[in-house]
This record gives sequence, C-alpha cells and structure tokens, in this order.
Amino acid sequence: MRQTNNIAEVADFFKGNDCFGILTHQFPDGDTLGSAYALCGMLQQLGKRAKVLVNGNKLPDRFEYLQAGIDKTDFFVNNYVSVDVADSKLLGELAVYVGQIKLAIDHHSTHKPFADVYYVNTLAANCENIAELGYEMNVTITKDIANALYTGIATDTGCFKYSNTTPQTHKIAAQLMECGCDAAGINKAMFETVSKNKKALESFVIGNIEYYYNDRVAVAHTTKAILKQFGIAEDEVEGLSAMPRTIEGVLVGITIREKDEKTFKVSVRTNEGIDASAICSQLGGGGHKAAAGCAIQGTLQQVKDTILPVVYKYLEK
Amino acid sequence: MRQTNNIAEVADFFKGNDCFGILTHQFPDGDTLGSAYALCGMLQQLGKRAKVLVNGNKLPDRFEYLQAGIDKTDFFVNNYVSVDVADSKLLGELAVYVGQIKLAIDHHSTHKPFADVYYVNTLAANCENIAELGYEMNVTITKDIANALYTGIATDTGCFKYSNTTPQTHKIAAQLMECGCDAAGINKAMFETVSKNKKALESFVIGNIEYYYNDRVAVAHTTKAILKQFGIAEDEVEGLSAMPRTIEGVLVGITIREKDEKTFKVSVRTNEGIDASAICSQLGGGGHKAAAGCAIQGTLQQVKDTILPVVYKYLEK
Repeated sequence: MRQTNNIAEVADFFKGNDCFGILTHQFPDGDTLGSAYALCGMLQQLGKRAKVLVNGNKLPDRFEYLQAGIDKTDFFVNNYVSVDVADSKLLGELAVYVGQIKLAIDHHSTHKPFADVYYVNTLAANCENIAELGYEMNVTITKDIANALYTGIATDTGCFKYSNTTPQTHKIAAQLMECGCDAAGINKAMFETVSKNKKALESFVIGNIEYYYNDRVAVAHTTKAILKQFGIAEDEVEGLSAMPRTIEGVLVGITIREKDEKTFKVSVRTNEGIDASAICSQLGGGGHKAAAGCAIQGTLQQVKDTILPVVYKYLEK
Repeated sequence: MRQTNNIAEVADFFKGNDCFGILTHQFPDGDTLGSAYALCGMLQQLGKRAKVLVNGNKLPDRFEYLQAGIDKTDFFVNNYVSVDVADSKLLGELAVYVGQIKLAIDHHSTHKPFADVYYVNTLAANCENIAELGYEMNVTITKDIANALYTGIATDTGCFKYSNTTPQTHKIAAQLMECGCDAAGINKAMFETVSKNKKALESFVIGNIEYYYNDRVAVAHTTKAILKQFGIAEDEVEGLSAMPRTIEGVLVGITIREKDEKTFKVSVRTNEGIDASAICSQLGGGGHKAAAGCAIQGTLQQVKDTILPVVYKYLEK
C-alpha cells in the first residue's frame, strides 16, 4: 500500500486502465454517491467502461437523479476503486472486494489505508477531489457530472455552512453552476423537502432529547419501532444527525439510530474544537473533526453507556 | 426621482459628499443590517462620517457583531441613504426621513421609488450590491466589512440554498472568506443556534400547522401569548418563516406572526414558480418571487381570511 499526493498519477491510472468498479461506503450519503457517479460519468466520457457499486444494490430514492446520463451496460470489472471510504470496514457488503482495490480517493484525515494506492486530500468534500481529477483528466463537466459533484459538496458542508468550507469550495460551486448544475433543485431535495410524517417524527425526536453533563451533551435517538410508528423509511432519517448540536450550549450532539438487530449507528457532531473523529475512533469509527460516526452493538441503553464516558473524557480536555 | 444603473455614479455620490445616515428597513434582517454596516465601515474607511439608523434604535442581539470596527462618534446627518428598502412604508419609524433620502440602494424587483436617485440591481442579496460598490470605491474589504457582507448574502440566500444564488454569489463569498470573514461562525449564529426554548416552540408550531387547498398551502402562526408561554423574544422567531414551505407537496408556506395589537406580519414562501411577491403586493407588501411579506391588521382569523383567497387565486394560475 502506497500513498500518492499527485492527482496527475491518479489521472494516469484511469487513462491507462479500463473496466472500473467504483465502490461506495455503507449507509451511502451525498458525497460518496456524488463522487462515484461523477467519476463514473467522467470515465464513460473518456470511452471507458465504469459502474458504481452500492450496498444493497439500490440507490436511496432521493439520490436517483445521480444516475442521469450513466450508461448501464454491464461488464466484468478489472479495476476496483473506492471513493469517500475512510476504512475498509465502512465498505459493508462491498468489503468482499478488499484485496482487489487498486485505488482509494478520499478526503478523511482518519483514512486507514486498504487500497494498493491511496490519494487522500482533506478537502471539505471528496467531490472536490473528484472535481480536481476531472480538471486533470480534461473532462467536460456536463450538467449531470456537475449535479453529482455539487451534491457531494453541498451535503458534506451543510450547504456551505460548516467550518470545512473554504474559498476553494465556493469557487468550485460557482464553476459547477456555470456548467448548468441545478443547485437550487438539489438543495431543495437534500435540505428542504420533508414529508408531513417526517416533520411529526422530528417533533417527537426533539421532545425526547436527553441532556447530559450540564446540558453540554444532547442525545437524540430513533429506533425501528419509532420509525414504524411515524411511517418513516430508514433512509429518510439522515438529516436528523445535525439537529442536537444546534441547541444552544450543546458542545456534543449525538444521534443514535437503530439500523439492525442490536446494531446502532451513532453520529457525533461537535462544537468548539471538540474532536468528534477522536471520540469515534475510540469506538471503531471515524470521520472529521466536527462530524464523525461509528457503529455500536448492544441495546439502546448499552450504546449510551458505551459512548457517554468516552464523550466525557473529551469534554473535560 | 431618477433611476441609475451605474454603480460608478453611486460611488461618486459617496466620494463627493459627507455625513451619511444609512436607513434600514423595519424588522431588520441580515441583509439590510449587513448592507448598512458594511457601507458604514467603507465610508468611514474613506474618511467620511457615517452612521446606521435602525428602528427602535436597537440592534437585535444576534446582530451585535456587525458593529465591530464602527466609529460611533455622533454628527449631524446631511445625506440620508437607504439600503435593502423596497418601499418607503417598510422604513417604519424611519419613514420620518422620507423626502430627504438622496439615494436608495436595493435589490428588490418590486422596488417602489422614494429616493432622489435609486440604484436597483436584483442580485440575490443587497450585500452583493454593496460589495460591488466597495470594489468600485477601491475600499479594502476588512474582516469586519467582510463579516457584514457575508451576513447579508448568507441570510438572503438561505446559506446559498435558494434559487436566487448565482455563480457570482459564490465568487463573492470566496472573496469574503479570503478577506478573513468568519463564515462558519456567522452561519452557526444565523442558522444553527437554537435555544432549548426555541426548539420547544418549533415543535409546538409544527404541531399546529394548518393545511389548506389539498395540503398545497401550509399556515404556521405565532402570537405574543405563544411566545410568552415558551419564553421566546420577538426577534428570535425570524427563522420560522422558512419552515412551512419545506413540507413535501406544499406550494405556498405562510407564517403569520403577531407583532403588535392586531398587527400581524405575514411571510410567504413559495415553490414551483408561484409568485410570492405578487401575492404580497396585493396585500400592501412586497419582496421576491419565492419569498415575500406583508403586514395585515386584524385578528389572527381575519388575517387568514384575508390572505387565503389571494393565495388561492395564484395557486390556480
């Protein structure tokens, strides 16, 4: 395993090979999917065969537009690459390809190498890396590619709100808009469309937030039973993770979501320099300084009992 | 009254005069205040005397940082100018200066002339106009000026989410970040800091939304009594206006807020091309295509009875 910081080497890898399988992380979000579909579109434009692989072999409905312009003709993959995957454990069922992954393109400072070659540039969104790769490969940024790149950039920056946003992020966004991306439509779909049921769920989750350590830690949770009660699908609850941190005085906002039998996904969002990725690393996860995640086995109470002492250590630092 | 489209003429007006009083609109928001304080800082940098006038002579607490770097020495105003004021009626108590207003700088397509000269460029935020004026006047964009300009741009575009955002908006944001503006801190204060009480109010308001015309219109409301019940100050409820429109299927989201005895402020946000500013114009208000407002006298029920038939007409168009 070898690191490269040279985007030209990454571009040469794609130009010199064919038949790419692009791997995305489990519980896929806008950045892994945006990266994958943008890269897929770029490679097809260069005359290559490429396809995107997602866990469960099914794109969440709200991301279906990312497939626009993609040729779905199947082929035998010779070169697996991963995008926005910080750790092979996050590949989920796609972890079967570990050992065959030639290249990883990622933006997580916590990246744990698993590919033959890994390119890690800690920009706000991995889609910024893919945009740079596109410029390097002299690809035309079509409307479809621009939509995919914009999706990752907007979702990973909270629509340019978070501290990871840089002047460069805004400059790329300007370029993508000039290439015809439907920024307002994407933002509406990602940030501003909530069903009546989901609004009711939000009300419920807010009402059941628990506060710890003098209100500096807020914990929200959903279970499969709660989702069923409100008629909400599993993949509709993503946006809730940002909510507990927005409460005044809260330094660590935690969202615990039941995913499978005794498996909970934990999202940690922090304020004022508390290191979310350090907290989650201690629990087998990872991410960024202000937004990270991990998966914890057990009952809801066991999950809380596991994470809260770790959070406490970092609160007191 | 005369229109100019020439930003150089606007710059010359400021360079050739002194002692400016900068007027903002009532219920001041980030764009009118950001425009005013940025312009005030620019003029002081050019060696001019300038001050900002706000209704009630008091900045809302969350905008206090806009005063950073401003010299508060008082003086007698010779030249009144207005920023982000679409109509003299929106000046509130500052309407006493109507007749003496030499220049209006605005971005509302519905601008009703009231100043000797008016410069109206329908960019996303009036702060984009002030930024252009700053470039024209060769002002150094200090960190304080950048913070003020960023505030108006971020708040009027929903942090770059809304359809009024252009590539130019992102380019200016990149420049302001390069000038040292604290984008993440401003966004956190404007969009991501909600008190426990306000979260509880949000839950309550969501739970009491009324739907009309086959769920295509959603109406939320607050009264002084409700705010008192939740311990929320009048100027803390601004952000609620965006909420009803985010519900799936809703074409017109209306928020009705009791301001004074039998006076309600109505915010109208629309989807899919329904013209919010046309609706509000019929009720004596104005604004933009997707976000507008008006004030209506009466009881809460009378306010609803007044606005709903007007909305219906535009729904069916």
